[in-house]
Amino acid sequence: MKFVCTQHDLNINLALVSRAVSTRPTHPVLANIKIEATSAPQGGLIRLTGFDLSLGIQTNFMAQVEEEGVLTLPAKLLNDIVAKLPSGEITLDDEAGENLITITSASGRYQVRGMSAEEFPELPSIKRGETNQLSAAAFIDGLKGSLIACSQDESKQVLTGVYLKVEPERLEFAATDGHRLGIVEVYPNESETTEISSTSASKGSFEVTVPAKALRELEKMLGSGQEGDRLGLQLEQGQVVFGWGDRKLTTRTLEGKYPDYHLLIPRQFQRQITLDRKQLLAALERIAVLADQTNLVKFSIDSTNSSIDISVESQDRGNGKESLSAQISGESLDIAFNIKYLMDGLKTLPTQEITISLNGPLEPVILTPLGGIKMTYLVMPVQLRN
Amino acid sequence: MKFVCTQHDLNINLALVSRAVSTRPTHPVLANIKIEATSAPQGGLIRLTGFDLSLGIQTNFMAQVEEEGVLTLPAKLLNDIVAKLPSGEITLDDEAGENLITITSASGRYQVRGMSAEEFPELPSIKRGETNQLSAAAFIDGLKGSLIACSQDESKQVLTGVYLKVEPERLEFAATDGHRLGIVEVYPNESETTEISSTSASKGSFEVTVPAKALRELEKMLGSGQEGDRLGLQLEQGQVVFGWGDRKLTTRTLEGKYPDYHLLIPRQFQRQITLDRKQLLAALERIAVLADQTNLVKFSIDSTNSSIDISVESQDRGNGKESLSAQISGESLDIAFNIKYLMDGLKTLPTQEITISLNGPLEPVILTPLGGIKMTYLVMPVQLRN
Repeated sequence: MKFVCTQHDLNINLALVSRAVSTRPTHPVLANIKIEATSAPQGGLIRLTGFDLSLGIQTNFMAQVEEEGVLTLPAKLLNDIVAKLPSGEITLDDEAGENLITITSASGRYQVRGMSAEEFPELPSIKRGETNQLSAAAFIDGLKGSLIACSQDESKQVLTGVYLKVEPERLEFAATDGHRLGIVEVYPNESETTEISSTSASKGSFEVTVPAKALRELEKMLGSGQEGDRLGLQLEQGQVVFGWGDRKLTTRTLEGKYPDYHLLIPRQFQRQITLDRKQLLAALERIAVLADQTNLVKFSIDSTNSSIDISVESQDRGNGKESLSAQISGESLDIAFNIKYLMDGLKTLPTQEITISLNGPLEPVILTPLGGIKMTYLVMPVQLRN
Repeated sequence: MKFVCTQHDLNINLALVSRAVSTRPTHPVLANIKIEATSAPQGGLIRLTGFDLSLGIQTNFMAQVEEEGVLTLPAKLLNDIVAKLPSGEITLDDEAGENLITITSASGRYQVRGMSAEEFPELPSIKRGETNQLSAAAFIDGLKGSLIACSQDESKQVLTGVYLKVEPERLEFAATDGHRLGIVEVYPNESETTEISSTSASKGSFEVTVPAKALRELEKMLGSGQEGDRLGLQLEQGQVVFGWGDRKLTTRTLEGKYPDYHLLIPRQFQRQITLDRKQLLAALERIAVLADQTNLVKFSIDSTNSSIDISVESQDRGNGKESLSAQISGESLDIAFNIKYLMDGLKTLPTQEITISLNGPLEPVILTPLGGIKMTYLVMPVQLRN
């Protein structure tokens, strides 16, 4: 194998696929990145793959391939070397033999010991013509509103992922950790820039639960992409494959039935509050400093004065109190929340103003943006002490 | 106690003195910051003090003092609250009694439980008229060139500090961890902007070893100060006191005789190299990635070709090699270093070009800037393997 590419191309693509390389690999070759060089289209293509057996990332970029080949190299070491090389051309070859790879740049020569690619597992691949297509921007919206509510507790299995309900004209994202629930509906065909491709040969409907870890990587990778990128999505046996541009991310799915979260959402509300999201978030961030381990924040909703007093109190640290004005319909109420869960939702809602819909002090509370995308953030109140 | 000040003043001064508050205090009151409010000069002065029994930091700022008083408050909690408050006026009072302090800002009201200041230890103070005065800029130069060579090993006692030799017309900073040695001489009277004040009543000569930790804090605090700041320096019984502007830093000194480091510096050199400092540093940073735990880098100095090959090799990771051109006087030589120690020195030297002076492959090597301040960085070579 021998190819010449720019330091820039190799560097950004190595950084991308390295996200799928385990820091504690179960097999030595899984600490490596697979590098394939083919001379086929227009002089040559380099394909990089990182795979931790659950999450896989693959990218392609153009290079001048002088000799085709495939091998694997230690991800971290290769990344560290290439990141520090000066910009300009880099030559990579295995002419020294014995899996010793030589990297030559204008400034010097580096040799790194690799491993054969034979033991490197294959990523699942997308079959042509069976792909759901949607805009990357719409997908990111869905991820933002749901990832926040995933459980961090690995023993909670299916709750550590985002439930994805894919239909030809509609996508629903949902996640819950039992304390809060985030739901986002995306209708790609209603907007100008986001649409499910009608040229796609087959538009499947399916439901799947995807590990949050993989989706967080996908969110980062899509976020650094271009406006108007199209994302292909395909469900294989126990695997989801996301493909866009020259890149591909694969992940195993989470097994088990996702809970019927729609049952949690009340049909009617006795009270409704409209207020400035950032103002509420800033006040919560200030008083959060004084919250104790219970993370409890009390809301005294005063409909007569159209104001909300929010307060925290901890036995040994002290107390804090802030007041906000708000439009309130319904009667006054005292209600308490886990301040962290409330802030998580407020950070995620995309609009300036939001609506808080609620019933009694122990019934689910719903936060929704005023306008914009169709998003629901449900948070369970906490019982007030004394 | 009751005073009104700006969020900005309280915030930056709290952040400063908090650097001297221990994260694991030996006594509860040492987790706190002492706050003194006096109405004396022009409406009022607030004095904040943090003290971990070794390092002490004190700052003063103007405020509108309505009632004099003194108390202590938890450093971290107070910092966290004040940092998040909106800019504008803050009122702080103890009118709620029982050491409960109320902080009122435009946005809300916070109460924090404090402690009486009775058990808070006093900082050593500067006696008037017995202070050595010098420019803060010159002092920072001295710190930069010496702090890098201090030992990180707490058991090495006196080597964990910077040795300071203070004379009326000259200051010498030195530090060594046994592997390298940094020396900086500052002659404040030779420069326009840096001079030892001749109006100072008493100009003492003394030597003292000051803990690196305290000097690193001092370096940061002075670095954010103004050009032309004057620094007062005074040695008390086992304590050094640095004072500038409205601020003061005190630290215990390290006991024990500092080694006679001047004996380490060779009087004559058989070889001398002049080269571009940043070019060498960049090359070392690149190949450092491939260094193993020995951190060994080999220099092949070729006087015939006026070039230096630098290379690292590790059994299991690979190898790297770079070439540099240099002016070389004396014969060719192979010599090896700890790459980390070499990079530390190169980062600290202030000039574009530097001189490396050396004798045999196992004798001390001296790095000096070409022009600029009088600085010496000595590094011991390492024996080449095989």
